[in-house]
Amino acid sequence: MAAVSDNDIIARLGKLSISAPEVFKHAAVSGGAEWRAELDKAGKASVPLTKTLLFKPKQPKSAEPTPVLVVAKEDTETSSGAIGGALGLKDLRLANEDLIKQVVPSAASKDDVSALPLPAPVPSTLFVVLDSALASSSDAFAVHLTSSASTVLLKGTEIKAYLESLTATPEAVRVLDFAELKANAPAPIARAPKEAAPKKEVAKKEAAKKDDDLYEMAIQHKKDDDFSGWYTDVLIKGEMLDYYDISGCYILRPPSYHIWQDVQAFFDGEIKKLGVQDCYFPMFVSKARLEKEKDHIEGFAPEVAWVTKAGKSDLEEHIAIRPTSETVMYPYYAKWIKSHRDLPLKLNQWNSVVRWEFKNPQPFLRTREFLWQEGHTAHLDKAGADKEVLDILELYRQVYTDLLAVPVVPGKKSENEKFAGADYTTTVEGFIPTTGRGIQGATSHHLGQNFSKMFDINVEDPNADRSDPNANTKINVFQNSWGLSTRSIGVMVMIHGDDQGLVFPPKVALHQVVVIPVGLSKVEGQNQTIYDACEKLADELKASGIRATVDLREGYTPGWKFNDWEMRGTPLRLELGPRDLASKSTLAVRRYDNNKSSMPLDNIVDSVKSTLDDIQTKMYENAKAKMDQHIIPVTEWKDVTPTLDAKNILVIPWCEDPQCEDDLKDRSRAEAEAARGQAEDSKAPSSGAKSLCIPFDQERFGPFPKGDKQCCPQCGKKASKWTLFGRSY
Amino acid sequence: MAAVSDNDIIARLGKLSISAPEVFKHAAVSGGAEWRAELDKAGKASVPLTKTLLFKPKQPKSAEPTPVLVVAKEDTETSSGAIGGALGLKDLRLANEDLIKQVVPSAASKDDVSALPLPAPVPSTLFVVLDSALASSSDAFAVHLTSSASTVLLKGTEIKAYLESLTATPEAVRVLDFAELKANAPAPIARAPKEAAPKKEVAKKEAAKKDDDLYEMAIQHKKDDDFSGWYTDVLIKGEMLDYYDISGCYILRPPSYHIWQDVQAFFDGEIKKLGVQDCYFPMFVSKARLEKEKDHIEGFAPEVAWVTKAGKSDLEEHIAIRPTSETVMYPYYAKWIKSHRDLPLKLNQWNSVVRWEFKNPQPFLRTREFLWQEGHTAHLDKAGADKEVLDILELYRQVYTDLLAVPVVPGKKSENEKFAGADYTTTVEGFIPTTGRGIQGATSHHLGQNFSKMFDINVEDPNADRSDPNANTKINVFQNSWGLSTRSIGVMVMIHGDDQGLVFPPKVALHQVVVIPVGLSKVEGQNQTIYDACEKLADELKASGIRATVDLREGYTPGWKFNDWEMRGTPLRLELGPRDLASKSTLAVRRYDNNKSSMPLDNIVDSVKSTLDDIQTKMYENAKAKMDQHIIPVTEWKDVTPTLDAKNILVIPWCEDPQCEDDLKDRSRAEAEAARGQAEDSKAPSSGAKSLCIPFDQERFGPFPKGDKQCCPQCGKKASKWTLFGRSY
Repeated sequence: MAAVSDNDIIARLGKLSISAPEVFKHAAVSGGAEWRAELDKAGKASVPLTKTLLFKPKQPKSAEPTPVLVVAKEDTETSSGAIGGALGLKDLRLANEDLIKQVVPSAASKDDVSALPLPAPVPSTLFVVLDSALASSSDAFAVHLTSSASTVLLKGTEIKAYLESLTATPEAVRVLDFAELKANAPAPIARAPKEAAPKKEVAKKEAAKKDDDLYEMAIQHKKDDDFSGWYTDVLIKGEMLDYYDISGCYILRPPSYHIWQDVQAFFDGEIKKLGVQDCYFPMFVSKARLEKEKDHIEGFAPEVAWVTKAGKSDLEEHIAIRPTSETVMYPYYAKWIKSHRDLPLKLNQWNSVVRWEFKNPQPFLRTREFLWQEGHTAHLDKAGADKEVLDILELYRQVYTDLLAVPVVPGKKSENEKFAGADYTTTVEGFIPTTGRGIQGATSHHLGQNFSKMFDINVEDPNADRSDPNANTKINVFQNSWGLSTRSIGVMVMIHGDDQGLVFPPKVALHQVVVIPVGLSKVEGQNQTIYDACEKLADELKASGIRATVDLREGYTPGWKFNDWEMRGTPLRLELGPRDLASKSTLAVRRYDNNKSSMPLDNIVDSVKSTLDDIQTKMYENAKAKMDQHIIPVTEWKDVTPTLDAKNILVIPWCEDPQCEDDLKDRSRAEAEAARGQAEDSKAPSSGAKSLCIPFDQERFGPFPKGDKQCCPQCGKKASKWTLFGRSY
Repeated sequence: MAAVSDNDIIARLGKLSISAPEVFKHAAVSGGAEWRAELDKAGKASVPLTKTLLFKPKQPKSAEPTPVLVVAKEDTETSSGAIGGALGLKDLRLANEDLIKQVVPSAASKDDVSALPLPAPVPSTLFVVLDSALASSSDAFAVHLTSSASTVLLKGTEIKAYLESLTATPEAVRVLDFAELKANAPAPIARAPKEAAPKKEVAKKEAAKKDDDLYEMAIQHKKDDDFSGWYTDVLIKGEMLDYYDISGCYILRPPSYHIWQDVQAFFDGEIKKLGVQDCYFPMFVSKARLEKEKDHIEGFAPEVAWVTKAGKSDLEEHIAIRPTSETVMYPYYAKWIKSHRDLPLKLNQWNSVVRWEFKNPQPFLRTREFLWQEGHTAHLDKAGADKEVLDILELYRQVYTDLLAVPVVPGKKSENEKFAGADYTTTVEGFIPTTGRGIQGATSHHLGQNFSKMFDINVEDPNADRSDPNANTKINVFQNSWGLSTRSIGVMVMIHGDDQGLVFPPKVALHQVVVIPVGLSKVEGQNQTIYDACEKLADELKASGIRATVDLREGYTPGWKFNDWEMRGTPLRLELGPRDLASKSTLAVRRYDNNKSSMPLDNIVDSVKSTLDDIQTKMYENAKAKMDQHIIPVTEWKDVTPTLDAKNILVIPWCEDPQCEDDLKDRSRAEAEAARGQAEDSKAPSSGAKSLCIPFDQERFGPFPKGDKQCCPQCGKKASKWTLFGRSY
């Protein structure tokens, strides 16, 4: 669990409009006397202290711990028995160091325990208790930031607001009157007004048992520290995806499926303009058909899922679930294409395919079932097919750059890396700066006549020379196939997400704008004006086609809602409170760069639209600049591994020899391993560099080396093209 | 193979602008002398006769027959050797009666053989030969219609045009100069200009071998005579669907997948307005989860497909492919719904499900994999759930009536017919007039708390009375599920298709309009003006959002194209030729009612749009009127079976007793079987009547019987509601 920093806390306070609070750095302290001494030195002798204590109730070892964090005035008598009684918990004891680290990761010891660096939202298994003597006080108190060596001065009410902003509902912060509890001990439960509490706690604990990972509610990994932990964390907590009880399968929740629908709407519209038609082939493939083309299926065979039973009957012939559809579709191409007049035949499917990989699954990137589109086209002439390969690749580029705000490099795959059945493969290649790895975005293949010869897809050639009656006038068709999968969603998340959670480019965000009421009165019924204004604002935006929503959930603080929508990556938050209404404006907060600005309610639709456009553009430009910084031209071998190790991908003047590519991969892996004195993380597919693509735009890398210098840094042979190499997914 | 009628032929001639040709009915004739005598009686003594002969070459018994139909002047010497030589076929003999019936189904004997009732398009395995003495003559000749007892007078050129309209390409009609053939016999093949022919024929025969059913190219079944043969015939030949090498699985080709995409676009947009979000759950279900709810799964268990292997590894636990997603989704509902604030949760999936039925499969209606949407929602209160059930049902009604032009009756299912896990099921019920059977269109279920209790989906009830601290304040959520599948496409085809093929309502037609050039010159390069005008017209329509296409395929006659696009069901055909261009108009031909009208090219977009709207409306109104005619109120038992036998469904004042429904089904089946003295066609699911629904609109059936007459005709108990009963799919 990654720690919250002092700056994170200051930022959180800023969101609650507690800006620039007084902060002191001092020697680490243990206990009130030392702390008091340090504050005296800082000229704050009169500031009262607080104390923060972590308790643990007695419970079975197998149970999820339900600790209690108490924030109180230093001089309040915080009897563990009284607290336990009020909460319906048995035998509270002070927590040990292990539990402290689990609950407050920033704390090195019990002296550092503070409520300020709690994760947001606070796990619902943690009870947060606030001393009523603090809760209602407008005096400033000393509170530790992330350690006993730092102090911030906060009003009691500010402490309360802060804690409430971290929890799911304000009621989750329990304000206890310790003086009253003491007076009524040992039977506070008997008093009517408190009766509901124990019942609720029981329910709460049941809920905690029911769900194993409630404790893990906030983003608990820093993107730079533990990328893979961070990745699954933001996906699950941002509700993009959930794990499933079959390994390698995931549930695509609405925000991720929405992206896929946006991609579909765009791409499907564009390919239809190119004359492509959609269709649907069965998910099942007979064994005979799947295995007809041995070479083609070889790569997929170990991953094919087989249906062998229906109900209680064993099937006579085992049936495969499609891993891809060449062998499913092409026998019908042979049947349907009877004449050159039936060409071009351009079909596309939106479906799912199954590849039962046994490697470590990774959401979106390596899953046993995934959604994709697969286009399969047949042409009379190679020129028409060649053109289409690039037309489609250009659409893939647009999906990445224009919708997902993800920069990619279009290019051609090396012989080693092309699709086995293809004459050549084109690709758009992405880059994940955090890991320094390349990632294949989508590929468009020209299959030549490889499959049409296997599957006997041919026509009488209308252009054939018919002067020789014995000449063969048939021609096998030229084919392409091209595919884009939900992997693209994973790439987008990896590039744009941050330590607060997801960050969506507006064009693919399920909710582009969230309207949140702020400055609410605690008096019931007093907030209707604000609520109405929020709804009206959201309705106005929706009417103009903006995907806006309004968060009127009662019982959640604005701060908690801010965190929640930030975690979900909503591009723009509009805050609307009494002061905003008075000034006919709203506070617009951009998720992407946290930029805040007041936006007049007049002409709000245009303002929001241009803000969303601006966010989309900036997100792309920023990601593009970052990618460009990390594509390093390298011309000498000595620079290869250090450049990779510095989380870059590189372009080299390459010879395009397949053997050289194998050697380059082995050599760079060996160097990396030697340098680290150990093998790479086994999760990584390879720490050697492989070719990503030969970029179509060669100019961007500057003049190609000439003369003596025009040689491949790996093998020394004559180099022909700048080629992108890197570690990759 | 159903026969083409005299009227069909007249209609075909009409399309070629040969309207009202002279037709004579007379005594059946055998041979030229008898025919001549009949024509003399009709005052047509001077009209020359034709003869039509069917030959068969010598070929292996296992080979597909490649017969030759020769149409010649009666006095032309049609040497079979010369014909065989010209076509590269061996040993032509006159065909036997079996082959005659196969090629010309209308012919009762060899005397009835005529080329006019050939199926359109003519199977490519049939060689059609025309005497050059006829082909170029503008004299009128006597030709039999469908039998030797009818004659039509046609010019030689008209015969040629007619034959060409039936074949795939005009060249497919081989014009042979018999005089020349005779002069050059026995070695016509040696002459250079004829050389290509044998080569082509070889290719043709190879193609015939490659594809088993080329012979079956035209719609060969009459809808009223052999409904099930007709149904698969129009689907396959209209290219909606193709058979697959795994039984019960079908390929959805572009025209049918297009309908599904139109349904998706409409329905998805509407449910999103209701706050439903799309998501995607894995297709796989663990055995444990599938079998968790025994009662629910019982109905599906015999049909579940099981994956037991991946690559060469046996899976430790067998994995099911979802037959429906209740047990897949609801465990996650329990996890995700933590508070009443998470309600309503409204999720929908567009996916495919697998039910490995062992009954006879039927395209769209009973398939092992099918596409559908399944909505699953959870509500805090029953009222909200109840409302949604009907909101969704209303959308299903709109899909049927407004998109597919299919009338349906919305209502509630009986206890026997409701979904096993539901509190109640609502449905839209369709009707197939040709078979007189009802068909379930789509269902929307209220599941009550049945599943939420099984799966422990509950929240703290915000409205609970909390005065009693020991009271249970949790509430199980109220759930709905609702689904619409690609079955809807089959219903549409069954209702609208006719003997010429598919008929699409414009709203769901892949191509709403086809532009076809007519009046073309045979001189190469002379037709560019027409082609350009056709393209311009199609482009203009496309630019305004009309799904138009243009058929500029060279080598096909206009007549052949008319047939082709009619078979595909394209709602509107625009013919454009030199005369149309001169008059700045186009001939608009409606598929649905074959209505032809000249349409000015000025303002063509509006004209086409309003024509398409009119077709859509008329198709629905017509289908609705037909359905209404066949819903018969019945109040006495004696009328039940006769009404069913007359291909009706019926409404009866029903008692709603489940036992009565069982009895009614058995009793009506027994009566039907007794009346026919044999069991029904085994393909029919049941010949007994079951309840289809209790229609919401009770008024439409007139006043409900009162007093003594308010009794169920089956059991005599007091009846409560008009209820729709019928044989059904």
